[in-house]
Amino acid sequence: MKGKRTDFGGADCAIARALNIIGDWWSLLIVREAFHGRQRFGEFQKRLGLAKNILSSRLKKLVQEGIFSTEKDDLTSGHRYVLTPKGENLCIVLIALWQWGEAHCFAPGELPSEMIDTRRGRPLQVLHLRDSTGRRIGPREFRLAAKSSRPADRAGVSE
Amino acid sequence: MKGKRTDFGGADCAIARALNIIGDWWSLLIVREAFHGRQRFGEFQKRLGLAKNILSSRLKKLVQEGIFSTEKDDLTSGHRYVLTPKGENLCIVLIALWQWGEAHCFAPGELPSEMIDTRRGRPLQVLHLRDSTGRRIGPREFRLAAKSSRPADRAGVSE
Repeated sequence: MKGKRTDFGGADCAIARALNIIGDWWSLLIVREAFHGRQRFGEFQKRLGLAKNILSSRLKKLVQEGIFSTEKDDLTSGHRYVLTPKGENLCIVLIALWQWGEAHCFAPGELPSEMIDTRRGRPLQVLHLRDSTGRRIGPREFRLAAKSSRPADRAGVSE
Repeated sequence: MKGKRTDFGGADCAIARALNIIGDWWSLLIVREAFHGRQRFGEFQKRLGLAKNILSSRLKKLVQEGIFSTEKDDLTSGHRYVLTPKGENLCIVLIALWQWGEAHCFAPGELPSEMIDTRRGRPLQVLHLRDSTGRRIGPREFRLAAKSSRPADRAGVSE
């Protein structure tokens, strides 16, 4: 049976694997700070105000998981934590969280900041689920399926 | 100064507020199960295999936060947990996590399942950051800004 069973609940689920890496409050907030330009231990510590041992263990795991690489810091005796491409791709998770939080966790007018593009200075487009043709779909219009249940032909899959 | 300062690190951050609600592994996996049609305590418990007291506390918080509403269960003496619109909108966070996990947490060909749209049975379009005109932007082309630093004119903001 091994190899045929699709276990949506365990390690075969991409959500579960992603959460295994970044599924803790502090890890995603550290990544958020990195997007804001922070690179040094002291900068993360000052911004997040968390205990040094916790920050240290989270950074260590994020390096092990390939979210950050470390580079020698010319200014201090330590090193800098630099987002890898894998880490940078977490931007979509952060923006999804931001937009959901913006829509559901603030009173109208309460949120004093916004995510803007650096070129035009305008709010980012709201993320929407879309099928492979680009049509917007709702939260009840997608499902998980075993790949073997679908023809192997991937033609027409748009990204 | 109050009201002028934009504290990106604390409760004024939409990411922090979102994570305060769903920023724990189990809560998002419970929501994932709800998207798979699970509604009953026993169903969540069986699928996730977590301790009943932990599941109970997470479900209680998710109801308090308006992610689930409860409805009387005609089949059992308990009730069903039904995603609210606020809960259903978490689909974008789950799909962002799925797609990141799919891209970065599996060897090629290792992932046996995929997220498809129910109508055409094709993989969902990959989520991308886009500016207000719809142009794709990279992970270094957005930033957080105080709303007061931008003209109040919101014309042209596309969703």
